[in-house]
Amino acid sequence: MIDKKIDLSNGFACPLPIMEYKNVLLAHGGGGKLSHQLIKNMFASQFKNELLEPLHDGAIFSINGTRFAFSTDSYVINPIFFPGGDIGTLAVNGTVNDLSMCGARPLYLSSAFIIEEGLPMEDLWRVVLSMEAATKAAGIQLVTGDTKVVDRGKGDKIFINTSGIGIIPDGIEISPQRAKLGDKIIVSGTIADHGIAIMSVREGLEFETQIESDCAPLNGLVGAMFAASQEIHVLRDPTRGGVATVLNEIAESANIGITILEDLIPVSEEVMGACEILGFDPLYVANEGKLLAFVAPTAADKVLAAMRAHPFGKNAVTIGEVVADHTGTVIMKTRIGGSRVVDMLSGEQLPRIC
Amino acid sequence: MIDKKIDLSNGFACPLPIMEYKNVLLAHGGGGKLSHQLIKNMFASQFKNELLEPLHDGAIFSINGTRFAFSTDSYVINPIFFPGGDIGTLAVNGTVNDLSMCGARPLYLSSAFIIEEGLPMEDLWRVVLSMEAATKAAGIQLVTGDTKVVDRGKGDKIFINTSGIGIIPDGIEISPQRAKLGDKIIVSGTIADHGIAIMSVREGLEFETQIESDCAPLNGLVGAMFAASQEIHVLRDPTRGGVATVLNEIAESANIGITILEDLIPVSEEVMGACEILGFDPLYVANEGKLLAFVAPTAADKVLAAMRAHPFGKNAVTIGEVVADHTGTVIMKTRIGGSRVVDMLSGEQLPRIC
Repeated sequence: MIDKKIDLSNGFACPLPIMEYKNVLLAHGGGGKLSHQLIKNMFASQFKNELLEPLHDGAIFSINGTRFAFSTDSYVINPIFFPGGDIGTLAVNGTVNDLSMCGARPLYLSSAFIIEEGLPMEDLWRVVLSMEAATKAAGIQLVTGDTKVVDRGKGDKIFINTSGIGIIPDGIEISPQRAKLGDKIIVSGTIADHGIAIMSVREGLEFETQIESDCAPLNGLVGAMFAASQEIHVLRDPTRGGVATVLNEIAESANIGITILEDLIPVSEEVMGACEILGFDPLYVANEGKLLAFVAPTAADKVLAAMRAHPFGKNAVTIGEVVADHTGTVIMKTRIGGSRVVDMLSGEQLPRIC
Repeated sequence: MIDKKIDLSNGFACPLPIMEYKNVLLAHGGGGKLSHQLIKNMFASQFKNELLEPLHDGAIFSINGTRFAFSTDSYVINPIFFPGGDIGTLAVNGTVNDLSMCGARPLYLSSAFIIEEGLPMEDLWRVVLSMEAATKAAGIQLVTGDTKVVDRGKGDKIFINTSGIGIIPDGIEISPQRAKLGDKIIVSGTIADHGIAIMSVREGLEFETQIESDCAPLNGLVGAMFAASQEIHVLRDPTRGGVATVLNEIAESANIGITILEDLIPVSEEVMGACEILGFDPLYVANEGKLLAFVAPTAADKVLAAMRAHPFGKNAVTIGEVVADHTGTVIMKTRIGGSRVVDMLSGEQLPRIC
């Protein structure tokens, strides 16, 4: 453990927060335990304010009576083109989804490119066309941007940041803290498709059917869910760190117990096969077009039916519920009748997956 | 000139816009002619909408009767620590200033880090502390964020994106198109300090007095200017590409002629000396705490007085005006009594200056 004083050149000394590592590791960006430590000890502590506090997918604030959500993400995925999408599709859908998970209707997006010198213009053009198609599919507008170029070897083809603004309709109240005893936990479809599509490309794996990323905008699906019921308490898209990490975050921040049933968790046969070959647990693998919803038990059937009627929710299924025991912990009932703790991702499973 | 069809792997062909270059160059991010070409031909054409159209420092839109400005910038400056600030200070002030140049009062900022694996935690901590100090100095809140880590050699220490939201008060109407015949052009202080501070570090130059970046938040200064008069038509901070590039952008988009007087342009002695050694024209060098204002002639004295009463405007001076001749062009009356066209920056003068 390092806990020493730094002598800053601007003339004052300030303690570095206790960090186990002297240098930043890939795992600090992996969405698991190290990411959480970094965010908690370095960022949340310094920028403390009531809006940052909830560490949601975005900030929520009210201006002149209108509630807004505001979210940002930088996309550094490798490779930039992959089955089912590219970094442009991902950059648009990722931020559309973060806003949707706040219960907001996404309106406007910014996009900022960091391009490595030498990127073929054709690649940039392909990415721009994907972004254009993705904004149209999601029904939003890209309204402002920025372009930086860094020297060859100081970047990696292209990184894209998108930030977005959305409006939260009256009556909608979504927050990880709102998870309640008895809530049904619904997942909108098969999990782990995005992460395994990327890893298959990286590892050169070939399957009978090509595994495609599930990258998709979820604002339409969320709209359909709210039209069915407003008794939806929590929405989250399980990206980096996967379903396991997101459920742990919710269990911790709402101080609830979560039980899920292994038998009910939808994973496609190809993805399950690839997970076995690659040694991954699908619960920890990133998704880019799926959501988890915590819904009041009385509304669960209605919400599930609305999801199944939507193209991005047709395989939706209830996988568990909020329980009175094991507060702060996620427990999975396994296929063979046992039960095990599903912990947060520790270390780095899939670097640069988004 | 390349003007060929690309066969995109997703099955449709689409013409790459006419670009003179097959690959992205550093100059495509330099803020000059190539940047403009890239933005115009690739981005503006594809994402065409009424909000993106003006290619301002940010987008301006109205929601439920409130006018908002929304802006984004990624910061890739090298070195990340420099005299007068660091990448953290710059990332906060840069976006605060972009919002201010839309006439907005900045409220909320997002921040997204792309960190290269191996960055010393102490460096990250120093940057975070700078950002904290900068948000306090500007009176804004950082409300949401993102952290990504890329493999060693695929980034360069740290890149930071900030996006920001501000509110435009009633009665304020700022836009490059509003420049009018007779408008006085005021600069808020000495120019070229930021760019020369960075280049001096990179080149290892030493002067009697260390040249410091002018990096500063301009929202307070803009507030003081509006309190003096609302007859301010255009505001711009001359960052990449410097004063010359910004004046050219305004001359072009408002279809006006601009005349400036070389004698009146404030440049500190040290910066002028460094410019001579390094072979730079201060008109093209980046600033990070200065603004250009186009003000109605009747209000110019009041606005200038208000600026001089503010710490970030104490060296403000009128450097020129909007004239009836040479539409779309910037002309400088030189010290020796001649006059020359001041063109937009072509090529790359100072890579990774912000």
